[in-house]
Amino acid sequence: MTGRWVIIATDRAKRPNDFVRQPVPFPSARICPFDYGNEQKTPPEILAYRNSGGRDQPGWRVRVVPSKFPALGIEGELSRQGEGMYDKMSGIGAHEVIIESPDHAATFSEMAERQIEEVFWAFKERVNDLKRDRRFRCIILFKNHGDAAGATLEHGHSQLIALPVIPKRVKEEMDGAKLFYDLKERCIFCDILRQESASGSRMVTETDRFIVLEPYAPRFPFETWILPKRHESHFEDADAATLQNLAWVMRSTMRKIDKTLERPAYNFIVHSAPLQEPELPHYHWRLEIMPKLTKVAGFEWGTGFYINPTPPEESARFLREAGLG
Amino acid sequence: MTGRWVIIATDRAKRPNDFVRQPVPFPSARICPFDYGNEQKTPPEILAYRNSGGRDQPGWRVRVVPSKFPALGIEGELSRQGEGMYDKMSGIGAHEVIIESPDHAATFSEMAERQIEEVFWAFKERVNDLKRDRRFRCIILFKNHGDAAGATLEHGHSQLIALPVIPKRVKEEMDGAKLFYDLKERCIFCDILRQESASGSRMVTETDRFIVLEPYAPRFPFETWILPKRHESHFEDADAATLQNLAWVMRSTMRKIDKTLERPAYNFIVHSAPLQEPELPHYHWRLEIMPKLTKVAGFEWGTGFYINPTPPEESARFLREAGLG
Repeated sequence: MTGRWVIIATDRAKRPNDFVRQPVPFPSARICPFDYGNEQKTPPEILAYRNSGGRDQPGWRVRVVPSKFPALGIEGELSRQGEGMYDKMSGIGAHEVIIESPDHAATFSEMAERQIEEVFWAFKERVNDLKRDRRFRCIILFKNHGDAAGATLEHGHSQLIALPVIPKRVKEEMDGAKLFYDLKERCIFCDILRQESASGSRMVTETDRFIVLEPYAPRFPFETWILPKRHESHFEDADAATLQNLAWVMRSTMRKIDKTLERPAYNFIVHSAPLQEPELPHYHWRLEIMPKLTKVAGFEWGTGFYINPTPPEESARFLREAGLG
Repeated sequence: MTGRWVIIATDRAKRPNDFVRQPVPFPSARICPFDYGNEQKTPPEILAYRNSGGRDQPGWRVRVVPSKFPALGIEGELSRQGEGMYDKMSGIGAHEVIIESPDHAATFSEMAERQIEEVFWAFKERVNDLKRDRRFRCIILFKNHGDAAGATLEHGHSQLIALPVIPKRVKEEMDGAKLFYDLKERCIFCDILRQESASGSRMVTETDRFIVLEPYAPRFPFETWILPKRHESHFEDADAATLQNLAWVMRSTMRKIDKTLERPAYNFIVHSAPLQEPELPHYHWRLEIMPKLTKVAGFEWGTGFYINPTPPEESARFLREAGLG
């Protein structure tokens, strides 16, 4: 899709035990703004699913608040201007934090499925709400878990950033998928689904609604895709049964990763079509998980060309052999 | 050039002291394959500048050897083939290590200028030699310094990777610069030189032959460019006087960075036009230095959109105020 090449350096082939293990430490008992009783330490909540209590009080199951240190601000006019030969615009956008559970130490491999499902419901609900603001063109849902993956708080949380532009990598992926569609009149992701499911060598799990696979030529060892089987371009259009199954798949996948790689730091990101686009025949949403096992060095930064020491067929086999459903 | 947007998050503005300092540790006295007397621990040398001794013996000042763990191999046919819907090719290329000094602990801010100049001569000589092999389309010269920047050996060394394809990010930059040239009939880098030199706010140093600047909208805090004033598309065509001045500029810049940021881990990379291209009116080589101060998180990986907490005008001011010539 994006024309990227990856070197799969099999001479350096790394098995899970070859990576320097840095398990994310078990959380400490420090005061945390995301724990029950500290609701005043965050900006006022935007959304919460509750058992009891009122706004900004304990009793919630999942809670969404604005970021205290937003990368972009929600207020103001969207203005673009030149600065000599350069372009700039005001930093309009939204930056929200999805607190995944009141349990400070909960992770996706240990949470109840129902809890994970509600996290995905919160994702969907927030995107559908922000979508009505026509200044926003793209929303990125992502998670940084563990210090090495850029997390600054240990209490489990995901993030949402709404942007007034379509980021470069999103645009490239859209353009690449469109080019494929124009040529073949098929969605490239639907083709990937069929080829991977038939070959099996890069498959991790399969359910009625999803396949979990290690993609061909991944940038990073153990990069993992959760791909819905039914063609759908926007994550926020996923129905209840899909989100329910996604919760099961996410838990199962994170359990395999945590077992195989000893609770690594990781990032995940939801790839979905830009907000103001209608349902697209050429694009297909997915969730991408990237365990943080290697350091990205000068070569990668300068070239956009990656060296990956673990073939995806190997990492898929390790994850399959981890079992755990 | 590449259509990338960067968020300069001034609300989070970070001064040099705000970053978590992780100075690269002073080297230990472990046995090192790059020290005098251990020449047999590397593959046989390809190039050396020597005071005394024969091939693979002590007495060298700069020494170039093949990587012991090459990402690509020099032998074999270049073949491309399909694998279902995917593309693959054999891993043909060259991966060499430039040992910058026999002194195990030498860094660019402490080495003699003459020593740094010889490192750049070795870069030039190796590129010109490999260029004769028509299988190679692009050579990347880069350095990883410090564990956080991906270095695995502490003895100062740079690396060279010759590739049979033009990597995505290189191609994007070439295409972007070409588009600008087609529109304006001027080199975009020559325009940047003029605008930055006139405005001064992002300038670090200026000599007869180079300007050192913090680029507009950089991805990372303290990202620094060393840009030759004379238009030239290929690094390997730089003449003796240019390399001599580059050595002075490199030493001065690394001294400023080491003083301001307390000897950070960093990467540098030489951006230069693809090998088989003639001198190009639209492209201009440069050396880019990226101190490793922040962790790249899920948002950046997924979008190619960066959040930088330090405006380049601030980082330029800190580097100017560091003095040191």
